[in-house]
Amino acid sequence: MLRSAIHDASVVTVEFDTGTQARFHAIWLRDNALDPDTRAPGNGQRLITIGDIPADVSVSTADVINGDLSVTFQPEGKTATFPADWLADHVYDCDRAQDTGRIAPGITTWERGIGAPSGDWTEVHAKPAAKRDWLAAVAEFGFAKLTGGPTEPESLLKVADLFGYVRETNYGPYFEVRTEVNPTNLAYTGLGLQAHTDNPYRDPVPTLQILYCLENSAEGGDSIVVDGFRAAEKLRDQNPEGFALLTGYPARFEYKGSDGVWLRSRRPMIELSPDGELVGIRFNNRSSAPFVDVPFDQMEAYYAAYRQLGEIIDDPAMGVSFKLEPGESFIVDNTRVLHARLGYSGAGSRWLQGCYADKDGLLSTLAAMEMAQPEAAE
Amino acid sequence: MLRSAIHDASVVTVEFDTGTQARFHAIWLRDNALDPDTRAPGNGQRLITIGDIPADVSVSTADVINGDLSVTFQPEGKTATFPADWLADHVYDCDRAQDTGRIAPGITTWERGIGAPSGDWTEVHAKPAAKRDWLAAVAEFGFAKLTGGPTEPESLLKVADLFGYVRETNYGPYFEVRTEVNPTNLAYTGLGLQAHTDNPYRDPVPTLQILYCLENSAEGGDSIVVDGFRAAEKLRDQNPEGFALLTGYPARFEYKGSDGVWLRSRRPMIELSPDGELVGIRFNNRSSAPFVDVPFDQMEAYYAAYRQLGEIIDDPAMGVSFKLEPGESFIVDNTRVLHARLGYSGAGSRWLQGCYADKDGLLSTLAAMEMAQPEAAE
Repeated sequence: MLRSAIHDASVVTVEFDTGTQARFHAIWLRDNALDPDTRAPGNGQRLITIGDIPADVSVSTADVINGDLSVTFQPEGKTATFPADWLADHVYDCDRAQDTGRIAPGITTWERGIGAPSGDWTEVHAKPAAKRDWLAAVAEFGFAKLTGGPTEPESLLKVADLFGYVRETNYGPYFEVRTEVNPTNLAYTGLGLQAHTDNPYRDPVPTLQILYCLENSAEGGDSIVVDGFRAAEKLRDQNPEGFALLTGYPARFEYKGSDGVWLRSRRPMIELSPDGELVGIRFNNRSSAPFVDVPFDQMEAYYAAYRQLGEIIDDPAMGVSFKLEPGESFIVDNTRVLHARLGYSGAGSRWLQGCYADKDGLLSTLAAMEMAQPEAAE
Repeated sequence: MLRSAIHDASVVTVEFDTGTQARFHAIWLRDNALDPDTRAPGNGQRLITIGDIPADVSVSTADVINGDLSVTFQPEGKTATFPADWLADHVYDCDRAQDTGRIAPGITTWERGIGAPSGDWTEVHAKPAAKRDWLAAVAEFGFAKLTGGPTEPESLLKVADLFGYVRETNYGPYFEVRTEVNPTNLAYTGLGLQAHTDNPYRDPVPTLQILYCLENSAEGGDSIVVDGFRAAEKLRDQNPEGFALLTGYPARFEYKGSDGVWLRSRRPMIELSPDGELVGIRFNNRSSAPFVDVPFDQMEAYYAAYRQLGEIIDDPAMGVSFKLEPGESFIVDNTRVLHARLGYSGAGSRWLQGCYADKDGLLSTLAAMEMAQPEAAE
């Protein structure tokens, strides 16, 4: 509910019933009008372009009617209504968090202490609330396990079907993670792998990865996940100048292990939005190419920051470990959470299948479920 | 070939036979050593992590041997050879282009005057050089036509097969672009569409789009492509402060047209790498959500810059137009080139199929072909 609205030609100032005030510009209100000539009924898409709005748009009246805002725009002579709740949800006249490297709302960073968030295969398939909670864990923590699944090959594709779509790559719709004789990738050996994000040499990177266990009787081979956002926060707090270097210059990544494949990217190890929010981590010793975009006189400090980030990531206090059982899998947000594995050897077998997918589908499915069933009822 | 090398503990300075000098740091050289204990033979992946390199790494000898650089590192006592050509390809001790909004090497921006680059279906399938040239056009210009193809449905999937993989989304592996009765998206009407990039509400956006014509006897419906990078350059030159606003604050995009789908993103209209290279454009009037990340006192200037960018994009001098015939298609780099269509109506029919794919596969296929057949023979 609105208490009042005052205006001049270019700005409307409203007071909500909470006592909060907020200003909205004439051009912003006109562009975001909700009437059926501006927004298509049904799909909600905007029917006008910015060029359709007169450059001299102004407000001639602004009134509170039934608690909502009614505005008349000139020279169109057009009147549009803005619900008070909608305005409250879209206030931009506010103080903003400005700290560089800040974490987006809804994301919780973590270290070893937390229990791995987990869903159950049967429940996630049968109960919308269970599925919603499992997806919400991926959104908030950047990873979640799924337990109690089948041990048939390709079961991982059914995991992706729960929320979105597989991203096929040169590795196929999915790939086998087990020891090979002439591996095209070190992932297909028994070597331990430092915590890393996958495919930083790909642009865009796959934003989700699913690793699904079919056999795991070998010694070792434990999975470890590390929150790259927490690692970035630590680096920022310990060494702000080093953080600025890793965010300020692109690294380079490359993969040329298979015939007909030569993937290269030029992206920073720690990526910020233009207004300083942490949006992505790329960290992979195996596929880092020579860094050539860092000025000579910054290169040693850049490397020192890279080393420090590596030390933070390698710190056992950072990682959550588990050994997947057959029928268990986990999803990681590959723009945030690094995964590692311990080396494994001889006796027994270890067979995982992996695939990539994207966050757009997962977050869309989650948002639609949260809209449909906003309460955590079951 | 190298003429000479001198060193101190932390830096090696080489002189190439061209007379050019370049410095390389001890840590950089050690990290990028090419020996089989550092890089896996075969797949070329790095076997060591940054933490495996002693923090006090230093150079004890640096010699030119057979024209290449041989360096011994302490405290490891390890000697590695760096070919002169490899060093020349990876010089980072150099002046860099620093202008904000600069275009990456290999990209050529354009306006209406250029002829649409085009490949022929049969040639592209039969002749590697023809395929390479067609892919190279997409890399350089951000779009290319493909003519002379079949008129069977799903032929567009064969276009994607030429270089990579379809990105499936909520619209399916591909989608029908023709008039529908209850459209979930304005694309499925006869309305004209302002030049736009697709799916800016998706993160990551699909980086390639293929639009394939099966029928086009309707009046109108011409396709128009606009180079978003050229538009961004123009805005930067005409209004640097406005350019800084569109690159400096995220916009918001949203799509909620179908059941179970609610896609949202927070990304800038003009995206720069952290060191100022132009890397992406998102522009779409239909799916722009209210912008709430721009400070109140910058909003009017932000909107003025948005309007100006829209005027540049709408300028007929910017667009390359063509009317697709059945069996013709085009690819756009959806991070750069906008596409529009004129409205069409009643008589005749217009049926296109569209799908998304990603640039990683296309650029990888192109790079591997260019390595295999470096000369433009044929």
